[in-house]
Amino acid sequence: MPQLVLIRHGQSAWNLENRFTGWWDVDVTEQGAAEARAAGELMAAKGLDFDLTFTSLQLRAIKTLNLALEAMGRLWLPTEKDWRLNERHYGGLTGLNKAETVAEHGEDQVKIWRRSFDVPPPAAADGGAFDLTNDRRYAGIAIPKAESLKDTIERVLPYWNGRIAPALKSGNRVLISAHGNSLRALVKHLSNIPDDEITGLEIPTGQPIVYELDDDLTALDRYYLSER
Amino acid sequence: MPQLVLIRHGQSAWNLENRFTGWWDVDVTEQGAAEARAAGELMAAKGLDFDLTFTSLQLRAIKTLNLALEAMGRLWLPTEKDWRLNERHYGGLTGLNKAETVAEHGEDQVKIWRRSFDVPPPAAADGGAFDLTNDRRYAGIAIPKAESLKDTIERVLPYWNGRIAPALKSGNRVLISAHGNSLRALVKHLSNIPDDEITGLEIPTGQPIVYELDDDLTALDRYYLSER
Repeated sequence: MPQLVLIRHGQSAWNLENRFTGWWDVDVTEQGAAEARAAGELMAAKGLDFDLTFTSLQLRAIKTLNLALEAMGRLWLPTEKDWRLNERHYGGLTGLNKAETVAEHGEDQVKIWRRSFDVPPPAAADGGAFDLTNDRRYAGIAIPKAESLKDTIERVLPYWNGRIAPALKSGNRVLISAHGNSLRALVKHLSNIPDDEITGLEIPTGQPIVYELDDDLTALDRYYLSER
Repeated sequence: MPQLVLIRHGQSAWNLENRFTGWWDVDVTEQGAAEARAAGELMAAKGLDFDLTFTSLQLRAIKTLNLALEAMGRLWLPTEKDWRLNERHYGGLTGLNKAETVAEHGEDQVKIWRRSFDVPPPAAADGGAFDLTNDRRYAGIAIPKAESLKDTIERVLPYWNGRIAPALKSGNRVLISAHGNSLRALVKHLSNIPDDEITGLEIPTGQPIVYELDDDLTALDRYYLSER
């Protein structure tokens, strides 16, 4: 039976400050690193093991993966890193905290951006403080100016279908370390969650989510490992 | 011009205790981790950058790579991990320190093992404390019972020729994090060092070694980055 575990990166500096982060490369906090190690210890204690691991191109997800794998004695496992597992791009909201965003754009507009499935935030300013145009990790990639959750799903799913699903179907046990919205994309797909519900699904940091799948990768069960 | 940098893992717990380590999976010390970070900072300060990275299946080399890459802001680079970059397998000497080895085998015999090119140490005992038969990272691999430097070279070079050299020839800038003897294998090959000299070549921990190569991967220069 294919085995899949998802983990959202441990707490980041901007999670703590309640700032929109998106593609900006913020490190995990001490607590975030501890969450990652604890996730690895929990997976090992529960007898989980993996053959392949996937993560984004972002520091907080890669470090979470590495810390969890080290805690499992599995840092030697192969890892594929891909931008399509990156967080949703928050465009012009990047770097703003909740209070600043409300002050700048008004409470009603912020609610729309937070809760809507297909309304992207305002576009990132060219040459602004969070412009990634010259970041060579994204060379050759059309960096989005801003993404709705729908936009995020539209680049996560081709990667799922092209790389991760085939690995699962050929018998590999897979661990994915990623972000709130790239994981929402996968959970929506696997658990068949409607558009208007998925935006409200909170994915906690550093908590391994186990999927039990049948051979066609239909979800039979989904649970937090800490609750079993 | 192809660009290659080699780095031996930062100081490990058993480097510090002067124990034969080989394939046993010993962590880096605090000092070893600091060496790795300093190596990354030095490479960034000198303007070095990479496209592909390679390491062994051993914790101390993988962590050294990750710490150096993080210090360079390059943890997102792809990494290929392979057992053929592992340290020389010290067989029955694994876990012994220098004094214990001399007490058990005599000074003259220890000199032969340390200095000879093609004399392997005694074979590892099946089921001994350092038996790796049941370590799943080596599933499907004929784990050596003990290796001479010559044996080590004979499994490093096919990996160099099959994976690393083609990557360099197609224009990738390559960083390899590995071990004293797997790096000796590469240095012997690239710098054409005779059998009786290579065993005496000391490769310090955590020091980036830069190779300038021509398009056929003939070495034009080799130097410690800290000396330029």
